[in-house]
Amino acid sequence: MFRLKLQRHSSRIGKMEKNKYFIGIDGGGTKSSGCLINSEGNIRALGETGPTNYIQKEEPVIIERICTLVESLKEKAGISHEKPAAVVAGLSGLGSEKPRVRIKKLLEETKIAEKIMAVSDAATALEGAFAGEPGAILIAGTGSIAYGKNTGGEIFRAGGWGYLLGGEGAGFDIGRNGIAAALEDWDGRGEKTILRPQLEKYFKVSEINEAVPEIYVNYTTRGALAQFARFVFAAAQRGDKVAEKIVADAAKRLAEHIIALAPRLDKEKKIQLALLGNIFKSKKMLLPAMQQCWMEAACKIEVKEPLFPAEIGAVLLAQPKPGSLFMKNLITSAKTVKKSQPNNA
Amino acid sequence: MFRLKLQRHSSRIGKMEKNKYFIGIDGGGTKSSGCLINSEGNIRALGETGPTNYIQKEEPVIIERICTLVESLKEKAGISHEKPAAVVAGLSGLGSEKPRVRIKKLLEETKIAEKIMAVSDAATALEGAFAGEPGAILIAGTGSIAYGKNTGGEIFRAGGWGYLLGGEGAGFDIGRNGIAAALEDWDGRGEKTILRPQLEKYFKVSEINEAVPEIYVNYTTRGALAQFARFVFAAAQRGDKVAEKIVADAAKRLAEHIIALAPRLDKEKKIQLALLGNIFKSKKMLLPAMQQCWMEAACKIEVKEPLFPAEIGAVLLAQPKPGSLFMKNLITSAKTVKKSQPNNA
Repeated sequence: MFRLKLQRHSSRIGKMEKNKYFIGIDGGGTKSSGCLINSEGNIRALGETGPTNYIQKEEPVIIERICTLVESLKEKAGISHEKPAAVVAGLSGLGSEKPRVRIKKLLEETKIAEKIMAVSDAATALEGAFAGEPGAILIAGTGSIAYGKNTGGEIFRAGGWGYLLGGEGAGFDIGRNGIAAALEDWDGRGEKTILRPQLEKYFKVSEINEAVPEIYVNYTTRGALAQFARFVFAAAQRGDKVAEKIVADAAKRLAEHIIALAPRLDKEKKIQLALLGNIFKSKKMLLPAMQQCWMEAACKIEVKEPLFPAEIGAVLLAQPKPGSLFMKNLITSAKTVKKSQPNNA
Repeated sequence: MFRLKLQRHSSRIGKMEKNKYFIGIDGGGTKSSGCLINSEGNIRALGETGPTNYIQKEEPVIIERICTLVESLKEKAGISHEKPAAVVAGLSGLGSEKPRVRIKKLLEETKIAEKIMAVSDAATALEGAFAGEPGAILIAGTGSIAYGKNTGGEIFRAGGWGYLLGGEGAGFDIGRNGIAAALEDWDGRGEKTILRPQLEKYFKVSEINEAVPEIYVNYTTRGALAQFARFVFAAAQRGDKVAEKIVADAAKRLAEHIIALAPRLDKEKKIQLALLGNIFKSKKMLLPAMQQCWMEAACKIEVKEPLFPAEIGAVLLAQPKPGSLFMKNLITSAKTVKKSQPNNA
C-alpha cells in the first residue's frame, strides 16, 4: 500500500483562540524559511535561516537553527515574551516516521511552543498550495516528488526517492544525462550534440572527457550536477536533438508521478496541480509534453499557481478549520508580503 | 577525437636482457595484485595489497602500497637485493594524463626500479587479455568501460565515466535500477515486480520505501549499491518481467560500448573481445542479447577468454617484443599459477 499512514495529522491543534501566534517553517537543503501568523490570519513576521534538511544536517544543528528562527520571528513581530500556540516544522528529509518522531521530541524538549508538529516539507507545500483543499503538487528541484490529498484527507506520494534511487525528470537527472550525452558523443556511442562544446567551454577543457576527474572531485554534490540542467534546456531551445530528447524524457517522467497519483486522488482522475521547484522555470518547454502524457492517460489535470508557500502551509496544518476571516486576511497579508519577498517554492 | 594520444606507450623498455626482472601491478578499488616475471618469461612471484584506485586513495597511500608490494614480490622471488628492470603500475583512476604523470613521477622518486610506467588498469587488462595482440576488452564490474587496440597499436575507449556519469549496464546501474523499480512498484508508477518483496526481505523492512533512508545512510558507496545487481539477475532468471527488462537494457548498453569501438578497431568490424568483471558471472543471461545487438550493427565479435590477467598485461607493456620462448614460458607459468590463484579479472 502506498498510502502514508503517518501524514494524516490527526493531532491538529484544537480550537483556535484570539491573540495566539502560529509559526510555520519550511526547511530545505539550501535554506529554511519561516513565518509568524496571528490568530486573525495576519502575517506578522517572515524570516530565514540556513538549511535544515534532515539527511544532510546533524540534529543539534537543525534544532538550533529552528529555535533561532523562532526567536527572530517573535522579535520581529514584537512578541518576544509570548509562547506561540504552535511551531510546525516541515523539513526536507522527514519523509518517514522515525525522523519525524525524533525532531518532534527534540523540539518539544526546547519548549519553544505550546504545540510542536514535525512533518515533511512536501506536506507543508501541499497544504500551502491549495490552502488545505484536495489537490496535488509536483516538486522538481534537484530531485522530484509528487504529493497529493484526496477529499477524504488521505495523503499519497510518488517519487521523492533521492538522487541515487529516483529524482526522475528533475535537475540532477537532467544535468547528469546532459553530461553523459556529451561523453557518449565523444566516445562514439551517442549522437552529436552541442552540449559537448558547451560543456567543454564551461569546464575550460579542450575535450569533454578531461572534465570527468574534475566532476568527481568538485562536482559530485547533487546540487552542483543539477546546475547543468540549464545547459540542457538551453541546448534544447536551440534545437539540439539530443538535448530535446533529454527534456522530452524528463517531461514524461515528471508526468508519470501525477499519473500514478491521479486515480488515488479522484475517481475521474480530475485534479488541480501546482508545479513547484526550480525546474519549472522551464515550464514552457516541459508542460506541453506533460499535458500530452496526461491526456493519453485520461487524466484531467488543471495546473494552478500555488496559493501560499510551504511555511504558510505549515501554519495551516496547525489550524483545524480556519475561519473565512482568517483566510481572507491571510490572502491579503500574503499578497502584501509577496511584493517584497519572492515565493520560495 | 576519441583517440587516446597518451596510451601508446612509445617509451617501452629497450632490449631485454637476461636475468632481469619485471614487476606488473593491477591496482583496483578493492585490492591490488602484482607479479614478478623474469626475462625468461617465468612468473617468480605473485602478491596482493590494498586498493590503489587513484580517485579513492591519497597519493602517499598508493605509493606506499606499491612499494610494499614490490618489496614483498622481490622477497618471495628471492631477489631482495636486485633492482627490477621495470615496475609497471596499471591503476584504476589513471584514465587521464595528469594523474598518470603524477604517479610516474612519485614512483620514480622512490627509485624502486630502473624504469617506471604508470598506465590505466584498462590498458594493462587489454594487454594481458590478448598478449598484446589487437582486440578489445569490455569490463563490467561496479562500472563499465570498453578498451580496444587496432593493428596500428592505436588505443580507443568507450565508457568508463564512473558511477555518476556512466557505468551503463554494469553493477551500480543494474542494482540502482532494481531498487528504483521496486520503489516505482510501491508508489504506483511501475509494474509489479518480485524485486519489491525480495528487497523488503533483504532490508528487513515491512515496505520497501522504509529502506530508503537506510540506503542513503549505509548504502551509498558504489560497491554496496552494485551488490543489488544479483537480485535483479535472480529475479530475471525467475521470469520477472521488470527484472528481465533491466537485464535486457543492461545487455544493450554493454553491447553499445563495443559497437562504438568496432569501426575504429577494424574496417570490417571484426574483432576479438574478452569480457572481464563480476557482471559477466551472469554472462549466460547477457551474452545472447549482446550478440543480437552486434549482429544488428554488423559487428563480427569473437568472444574469447582473456589469456593473462592485468598484472601480467602490465609486464607485457614493459616488453618491446617478447620472444617466442618468453611467451611460451609465460603461458606455461601462468597456467601453473592459475591452479592455485583465481584470475583477478
